[in-house]
Amino acid sequence: MKFSLDKSYEILEHTPSVLRTVLMGLSDDWIMNNEGPDTFSPYDVIGHLIHGEKTDWRDRTTMILEHGTEKSFVPFDRFAQFEDSRGKSLTTLLDEFEKLRATNLAWLKSLNLTEDDFDKKGTHPSLGQVTLRQLLSTWVIHDLTHIAQVTRVMAKQYKDEMGPWIEFFRIMNF
Amino acid sequence: MKFSLDKSYEILEHTPSVLRTVLMGLSDDWIMNNEGPDTFSPYDVIGHLIHGEKTDWRDRTTMILEHGTEKSFVPFDRFAQFEDSRGKSLTTLLDEFEKLRATNLAWLKSLNLTEDDFDKKGTHPSLGQVTLRQLLSTWVIHDLTHIAQVTRVMAKQYKDEMGPWIEFFRIMNF
Repeated sequence: MKFSLDKSYEILEHTPSVLRTVLMGLSDDWIMNNEGPDTFSPYDVIGHLIHGEKTDWRDRTTMILEHGTEKSFVPFDRFAQFEDSRGKSLTTLLDEFEKLRATNLAWLKSLNLTEDDFDKKGTHPSLGQVTLRQLLSTWVIHDLTHIAQVTRVMAKQYKDEMGPWIEFFRIMNF
Repeated sequence: MKFSLDKSYEILEHTPSVLRTVLMGLSDDWIMNNEGPDTFSPYDVIGHLIHGEKTDWRDRTTMILEHGTEKSFVPFDRFAQFEDSRGKSLTTLLDEFEKLRATNLAWLKSLNLTEDDFDKKGTHPSLGQVTLRQLLSTWVIHDLTHIAQVTRVMAKQYKDEMGPWIEFFRIMNF
């Protein structure tokens, strides 16, 4: 499957409502547990996605379009949400994510990007040269893999309750 | 996290609307592609879940409650949906899944299961003795891991478009 801006919007526009549907109304046992030290709970993931909307995708798109490879992207803080989300309810975070995402997609559409723009390059602090096409594809993949992560983390909370069936779930990277 | 029927319902009741929110309105590129031979596309997963509602969870619960370990469960056909879903639209499948799940959960609630019931045992054709608690936990985990699978399969369609960023996604079982 080749990159397409329209098909990317299909995912990027869905993600806030997907996460809301997955998480709303659940007990804290499903939402607040993680996979062990330095891993994310579903609650942490929403904060992580908020931090991405604030500091990553939009800023790096701007950097590529305005500065090319001259200036390196600001490194992304993967653990910022542990501080930023403190004291906020899940609903507050879901609302914040939805609002930021809608603003960023409206902004992205207003750029009227062309095929030529997708080939433009920037400099990632550790990966080196990357294109706008790669950045936008990664944004989509980042959404989808974090939805996958959220549901995998939730599933793992019941791991000790499934008995011998665990055998069938090993092949699913469980 | 210990098994609880109420916390299990939280997930089981959500799953049809979660999958609808994830998949509705998407291009076929996102829905019909899989991860290679003998793997499921998101479309295939919905058929697989329908087959589970028809032949697995409810029937096996009944088997445990009525026959205990005397009779072995009927083996589950993991590939039935390739025939059963043929010619059906994704919307038709999502509707069918939602309806079957609602019926099965209403039935499950009508049983008024007790803690003693959860310890009752049945015989799995390849895993041997299993309890009702383990069966119901596995139903929940099965839902969640298939949602994870759907979004992972979707993400993989863009794998060749992300360039050097793939490096950061290896740790996520991508």
